Amino acid sequence: MRVIYFSADQDGAAWIPGLQAALPGAQISLWERGARAADYAVVWKPPQQLFDEQTQLKALFNTGAGVDALLKLRLPDGVPVIRLDDAGMSVQMAEFVCHAVVRHFREFADYESDMEMGKWSFRKPRSRLDFPVGVLGLGVLGERVAKAVAQFDFPVNGWTRTSKALPGVQCFVGDAQLDDFLAASRIVVCLLPLTPETENLLNAQRLARIRPGGYVINVARGAHIVDADLLTCLDSGHLAGAALDVFRVEPLPKGHPFWQHPKITLTPHTSARTLRSESIAQIVGKIAAIERGDAVAGTVDPNRGY
Amino acid sequence: MRVIYFSADQDGAAWIPGLQAALPGAQISLWERGARAADYAVVWKPPQQLFDEQTQLKALFNTGAGVDALLKLRLPDGVPVIRLDDAGMSVQMAEFVCHAVVRHFREFADYESDMEMGKWSFRKPRSRLDFPVGVLGLGVLGERVAKAVAQFDFPVNGWTRTSKALPGVQCFVGDAQLDDFLAASRIVVCLLPLTPETENLLNAQRLARIRPGGYVINVARGAHIVDADLLTCLDSGHLAGAALDVFRVEPLPKGHPFWQHPKITLTPHTSARTLRSESIAQIVGKIAAIERGDAVAGTVDPNRGY
Repeated sequence: MRVIYFSADQDGAAWIPGLQAALPGAQISLWERGARAADYAVVWKPPQQLFDEQTQLKALFNTGAGVDALLKLRLPDGVPVIRLDDAGMSVQMAEFVCHAVVRHFREFADYESDMEMGKWSFRKPRSRLDFPVGVLGLGVLGERVAKAVAQFDFPVNGWTRTSKALPGVQCFVGDAQLDDFLAASRIVVCLLPLTPETENLLNAQRLARIRPGGYVINVARGAHIVDADLLTCLDSGHLAGAALDVFRVEPLPKGHPFWQHPKITLTPHTSARTLRSESIAQIVGKIAAIERGDAVAGTVDPNRGY
Repeated sequence: MRVIYFSADQDGAAWIPGLQAALPGAQISLWERGARAADYAVVWKPPQQLFDEQTQLKALFNTGAGVDALLKLRLPDGVPVIRLDDAGMSVQMAEFVCHAVVRHFREFADYESDMEMGKWSFRKPRSRLDFPVGVLGLGVLGERVAKAVAQFDFPVNGWTRTSKALPGVQCFVGDAQLDDFLAASRIVVCLLPLTPETENLLNAQRLARIRPGGYVINVARGAHIVDADLLTCLDSGHLAGAALDVFRVEPLPKGHPFWQHPKITLTPHTSARTLRSESIAQIVGKIAAIERGDAVAGTVDPNRGY
C-alpha cells in the first residue's frame, strides 16, 4: 500500500514518521510532482496537480474540519473524500467558544484592563437570560459547542439544515427559520461548512436581525461574513463586538480594518487545531475499514458540500 | 415578622424593596444602631454591634458564599447561621474558572496580544493530559467547577476533607493526601472555605509540590495563599502564572506587588457575585421552612467553619 501526504500549512516531516509507525507495511511519502501512483492521500489544501496526476486513489483524507478548499478542485471521479470524525477538534472548539462567550458576557477583558490600570472596579452583573447564544451549524463541532455553552445556563439556539433534537437547545431549521433564529440570539457562533449556500450568509441584512448589543463569534470560514457589513454593524453600535478566528485571506492581510478594531478580538485561526497523533490513528482505522470493504464514517457528499 | 438587612458592600436600598415584595407581611428595614429586635437578619460582613444588640434572632442569613468574616464575630448563642444553597453562584464560578483554565492552557492571552501587535503567530498545541486541574474544596461551588472543567476533557483532581464520589474526578482526602493531590495537579483552583485549617494553606512548601509550570487560580479568599511565597514561585519559574480574584485586603492596596506582575491576571473579586433576586427567593423559602419548624439546608457548623 502506498500513502501520500501533502499539507499547505504543516511540515510533512512530522506526519510521515507518524503514519509510517502506524502503517508499518505501507510506503509513506510526501507528495511531489511525478510521484508514483498511491492508494490513499492525506491532504490539507493540496494543489490541483496532485489530483491531475493521482487519478487512481481509493480515498482521500482531509486533515482539517472544512473541505471547502478541497471541493473547489477537480477531483478524480468517484474518489471518496473523508473527513476525520473529531480527532480532538470538537473539545478545542467548545473551549474556544465558551471562552469567548464567557469573556464577553462577564466583561472579563474590561475587568482585567481596569486592573492593569490599577483600577478596582465593579460592574452590575448581567443576566445570562439576556444573552441567548445561537449556534449556526450543529454538526460534530456545533453540537459539542452548543452542549458546552448550555452547561453554563445560557439559553441556546441552534440552526441546522435538517432538524436535530438536542436537549437544552432550541432548534431552528432551514432558510425559513433563519431570521427567527437570529432574532432569538444575541451571541451568534458560526460553525457552518462553507458552501455556495452559506458563503456571505452573515451580511448586512442578517447581522441586523441579531438582537441589539449582539456579539459574533466566527470559527468557521472568513467567507461566511461580509467583512464590510460586520464593520458597519460594529461601528453603528448594533453589535457590541466580535471574536474572529478565521478570515477571507489568511494570514489576515496587513492594513485590513479588522486589525486594531477596538471591538474585535482576533486570533490566528487557532480555534481547533488538527492534532497529529489523534488524526493519524483515525486515518489508519479508516484505511483498514476501506480495505475490509466496510463503510466509513465521515464521507463527504460533494453536492451538499460537507 | 421583622427582618433586618446589612451589607458592608452593597447598597441596601436595592435589597429592601425586594425583600419587602417577597415578604409582604413582614417589616423589613436596614439595620442601624438601636434598631428594634428582629426575627431574622440578612447580612454581609456586619459589624459586631449588630449581634451585641440583636441577641434574639431566629436565624442569620449570609449573602456571600464564605462565612469566614461572620464567624470571627461573637454571635448570639445558638443562632443558626445559614448560607444560601447556590443562588446562581456556582454557574458563575464554573464559568470564571473554565475561562481562566482555558485561557491559560490555550495561550489565548498571548495569541490576542500577538494579534494586537499585528503578528499572526502559531504555537505548538499542548496536550490537555499535561494540564491536570486540581480543585481544592468540593462543596457546592467546587463540585460544579470540577464537573465543568472535566467537560473539556482535562484530567480533574479534587481535594476534600471527606471523600466524595464525582464521576471524572479523582478524589484526594484530607491532610494525608494533600501532597499527592498537589503533585498530581498542574492547574490548582482554590475553592476552600477560609478556616484556621485552610488559612495560608498555599505556602512555599505546598506551592512547590504543584507540578512544574503550574498555574494557581484563587477564587476563595486571599488568606489561603501566602502572597510572598506565591511571588517567589512565580519569579523562580516554578509557577507559570496565577489568576487571582481575591486578596488579603480588598480592594487590593496600592503598591501591592500583585499589581503589574506580568504573570498574574487580576480581577476585583468578581468571580461569583451575589445575585439579588435569586438570593431573596432563597431567603424567603428558608424563612418559611424555619417558621414551619422544618430543617433548613445550608446551616453552618461553627466548629467546622463552613
